[in-house]
Amino acid sequence: MNVVIIGGVAAGPKAASRINRLCADAKVTIVEKGELLSYAGCGLPYYISGVVKESKELMTTSAGTVRDTAFFQNVKNARVLNRTEATAIDRTRKTVHVRNAAGEVQDLPYDKLILATGAESALPPIPGITLDNIFNLKDIHDADRIKAAVEPHKAINAVIVGGGLIGVEVAEAFQEMGCRLTVIEFLPHILSIMDPEMAALVEGHFEAKGVKIQTRTKVLEFKGEGRVERVVTDRGEFPADIVLVAVGVRPSARLAQEAGLVIGPTRAIAVNAQMQTSDPDIYAVGDCAEKVNMITGKPAYVPLGSTANKEGRVAANAICGMPDAFPGILGSAICKVFDFTVARTGLGEKEAREAGYDVVTCLAPAPDRPHFMPTSKPLFLKLIADRASRKLLGGQATGPGNAERRMDIVAMALTAGMTVDQLANADLCYAPPYSPAVDNLITAANILRNIMDGLMSGITPSDVLARREGGESFTLLDVRSPAEVAQMRIDGSLNIPLGALRKRLGDIDRSKPVIAFCKISLRGYEAALILKQAGFTDVKVMDGGILMWPGTLLRG
Amino acid sequence: MNVVIIGGVAAGPKAASRINRLCADAKVTIVEKGELLSYAGCGLPYYISGVVKESKELMTTSAGTVRDTAFFQNVKNARVLNRTEATAIDRTRKTVHVRNAAGEVQDLPYDKLILATGAESALPPIPGITLDNIFNLKDIHDADRIKAAVEPHKAINAVIVGGGLIGVEVAEAFQEMGCRLTVIEFLPHILSIMDPEMAALVEGHFEAKGVKIQTRTKVLEFKGEGRVERVVTDRGEFPADIVLVAVGVRPSARLAQEAGLVIGPTRAIAVNAQMQTSDPDIYAVGDCAEKVNMITGKPAYVPLGSTANKEGRVAANAICGMPDAFPGILGSAICKVFDFTVARTGLGEKEAREAGYDVVTCLAPAPDRPHFMPTSKPLFLKLIADRASRKLLGGQATGPGNAERRMDIVAMALTAGMTVDQLANADLCYAPPYSPAVDNLITAANILRNIMDGLMSGITPSDVLARREGGESFTLLDVRSPAEVAQMRIDGSLNIPLGALRKRLGDIDRSKPVIAFCKISLRGYEAALILKQAGFTDVKVMDGGILMWPGTLLRG
Repeated sequence: MNVVIIGGVAAGPKAASRINRLCADAKVTIVEKGELLSYAGCGLPYYISGVVKESKELMTTSAGTVRDTAFFQNVKNARVLNRTEATAIDRTRKTVHVRNAAGEVQDLPYDKLILATGAESALPPIPGITLDNIFNLKDIHDADRIKAAVEPHKAINAVIVGGGLIGVEVAEAFQEMGCRLTVIEFLPHILSIMDPEMAALVEGHFEAKGVKIQTRTKVLEFKGEGRVERVVTDRGEFPADIVLVAVGVRPSARLAQEAGLVIGPTRAIAVNAQMQTSDPDIYAVGDCAEKVNMITGKPAYVPLGSTANKEGRVAANAICGMPDAFPGILGSAICKVFDFTVARTGLGEKEAREAGYDVVTCLAPAPDRPHFMPTSKPLFLKLIADRASRKLLGGQATGPGNAERRMDIVAMALTAGMTVDQLANADLCYAPPYSPAVDNLITAANILRNIMDGLMSGITPSDVLARREGGESFTLLDVRSPAEVAQMRIDGSLNIPLGALRKRLGDIDRSKPVIAFCKISLRGYEAALILKQAGFTDVKVMDGGILMWPGTLLRG
Repeated sequence: MNVVIIGGVAAGPKAASRINRLCADAKVTIVEKGELLSYAGCGLPYYISGVVKESKELMTTSAGTVRDTAFFQNVKNARVLNRTEATAIDRTRKTVHVRNAAGEVQDLPYDKLILATGAESALPPIPGITLDNIFNLKDIHDADRIKAAVEPHKAINAVIVGGGLIGVEVAEAFQEMGCRLTVIEFLPHILSIMDPEMAALVEGHFEAKGVKIQTRTKVLEFKGEGRVERVVTDRGEFPADIVLVAVGVRPSARLAQEAGLVIGPTRAIAVNAQMQTSDPDIYAVGDCAEKVNMITGKPAYVPLGSTANKEGRVAANAICGMPDAFPGILGSAICKVFDFTVARTGLGEKEAREAGYDVVTCLAPAPDRPHFMPTSKPLFLKLIADRASRKLLGGQATGPGNAERRMDIVAMALTAGMTVDQLANADLCYAPPYSPAVDNLITAANILRNIMDGLMSGITPSDVLARREGGESFTLLDVRSPAEVAQMRIDGSLNIPLGALRKRLGDIDRSKPVIAFCKISLRGYEAALILKQAGFTDVKVMDGGILMWPGTLLRG
């Protein structure tokens, strides 16, 4: 059996290795356009910043062996044609037309073909984009060029166009290298994978670190003499000695499209659960292949090395006759932004509403360990659930606290289709160095249960602000201690500490709605219950408390 | 409705708070034997070590409010009788007989009674156990006495009897306070919640930190003049200026037993999923109540503050007529041991065999992040699964790497009854600062799949050692690089680097079984496949590679 694999970075080599393990007699050929094989592209921002010292480290196994053509031949029994481009697929003759760097062409016959052509981060057609020192980040060569442009100069002006995952990862690198950095984002917030209030927290952290975040801003032109000097936008000009354009990636599906394979609505190659395309002898894996969102069952496109490896294995199993199926993705994603972790999984609030769910959400900011442990750090959690089924739909987390652990727990709950009730009773590992006795996630799940059970009526800080700006009259009741209020307060709020509330009910106007809050709104919830028990009828709790109030956000 | 709650530390106050929220007209009384309420007992080892500066911090809310009687009265609307012991329950008259510190007695009428009497760590009847400076650790007073005995003296001889969770947590504290410390354990290994090879790794780390671990050792007597001076065991005497006895806890179920309530096989109070005892008007929650293991469905006893809080909420819901059920526990547990985390969930290997499963296990030691990230740390993982159903049964993890995240993921997989195939395709959060592209857990799940699918035949390092000591002849094939072999090797092994294996097959005796390994046995698995493809018939892979070989264990 001849297996040809187009693409040698992640999913392709994974499939090659697995086929070699399952079918000793398969003849596997990997065709790779570039020179390098099987490198950790996700590590490039850390190579730029110098956290990873040498680019070679991104190309070795954990035992230190370089994954070069000899490695694949000797260990994986796979022939590698690198610096070789696949230019066409002849599905009738079952051949792939390839051309190497020397211009030599040949037709490779295949019984099974695997497309692992990845994704491309194209430069948008902005005037001046071909000026020197405007980069994007696809591979190690780009990273080397970016390092060379930044390192000798240090305190230069850098602009990153696009505040997505790659943009923010490189933003951290640039700032740590000493650049004066501006991130320009077209949308209202950077990190569109996060809900607005969570993205706003990350923006606050960026600004606390000295990075200018310029949202709702459209780049009109790059200007300079030979080399870029400034970025012209609809909100002014920004000086720029170097520009990284990171406006997202799109699947490299041209070859598949030209061969007449079905392309999905996300513009990635359509595949079934065995990673098989519309041609049963052709598979597509990794960043060029369309995914399925496990929650909605709808097509999705989230290119990640973790998914690529799983898909490579599934395709190899299918080709070797071993039953397997890739169940889809949740849209789990994570990145590091200085001292913050930003993580999410499942559906965001807007996505969930658009998918037709009766959405219930909660914000739960709290220390990620018992407050008495000095290692405890703030963590901002958001959960999204469906009122009717009580099923969890998604989670988001950010802050200096341990977000990755909580989002992986949510990812597992989503994989299993768990209700918030099941999550609330999960037997998570507990000891003070790791989490509070009632974990942040369990608190959040219980808040959702209280909302669904009609015990609590929440209102988001931005809705409070909107009602106030709309001239509505209500009592904004702050039940924190006077010492806490002295540190930060919301203008116009009435302070009655929770412990005194039962005795001071007369201080509150019964004719007006009451919105109660505290630091994180657990005491706000207690206060609302006390008021309801005392006959107040219109009582709400402000989600997430003062910590989620715009403008008093924790910035550091 | 009169609700009496006996016990004011964790589950009791939780139930009181929740009842107050759900039923405004309930009259809740908390009866607490001690003076202190609602304190974080799990934080005591960190108070002893000085990580937590003041005992008061263990008794405050995260907003800094002390949870004293006034707090419960004002905020939770609950009356607290502290320094008051419940001495008898009259189930016919539905009263609890109590006596306060002044000797005053009264009968408290109840409609619903909640037992939250906790657990006790009794001193075993060892001769000399009443000598001064022999402690156990139940509450803040014990912690204060232990601090007072250790702090002024520093380099004193300390002995901890019992290497369970509390023993190892205090061991870290004592060592960091400057004691010369010996931990004496009766069983072959400390931390019996862990499988032997995992516990051995932790023992190695303790010894690297200068703590003497003395296993298979029985304490016969404590000797000294007034104050303890030495611990006499069946393996010699140990000097001791201070002794902590931490030989486990047992449920405080005397009151329930005397009232004729059903006590379960674990000696804890038997309850149903609503936390109801054999008397429908009496509930039991927290460390005095029996649990159900979610995997086996059998009674279990794992006293933890995290579980206590959940059970308190369930009992309150049941009493207030709100449908709820506690699903049981997994035996999830975690502790910090210097630079190591020790975590586990579900069934251990032995437990799983005893429960009748056809057990498959794997050891997967690997860096917890991509090897090129400087923050990457070793993590030793073990997974346990059932061959027939392919369901995961349990997981264990230790090492300096992030064990807590992986064990919580496994806990969620166990809660959902997932197969290893589902775990292997889970969409976990991936970026290089957090995990490898193929997470350690996904690698481990894939090893289990390979074993179950007949692609790989594993053998544990201890079985290899036993076969060798039994005089069996086999080739122990080390496929690491010469540079790695120069650092550490197993005597009598044959080294052929993986990349050279296909060309050097003639160097291996075809008449003998081959056991292949590398550092962590991923290359060992590749080697085994190459050998099988070349016609070798008896080929096994050594689980976990040289990192799991006894004696060459990673020690810190």
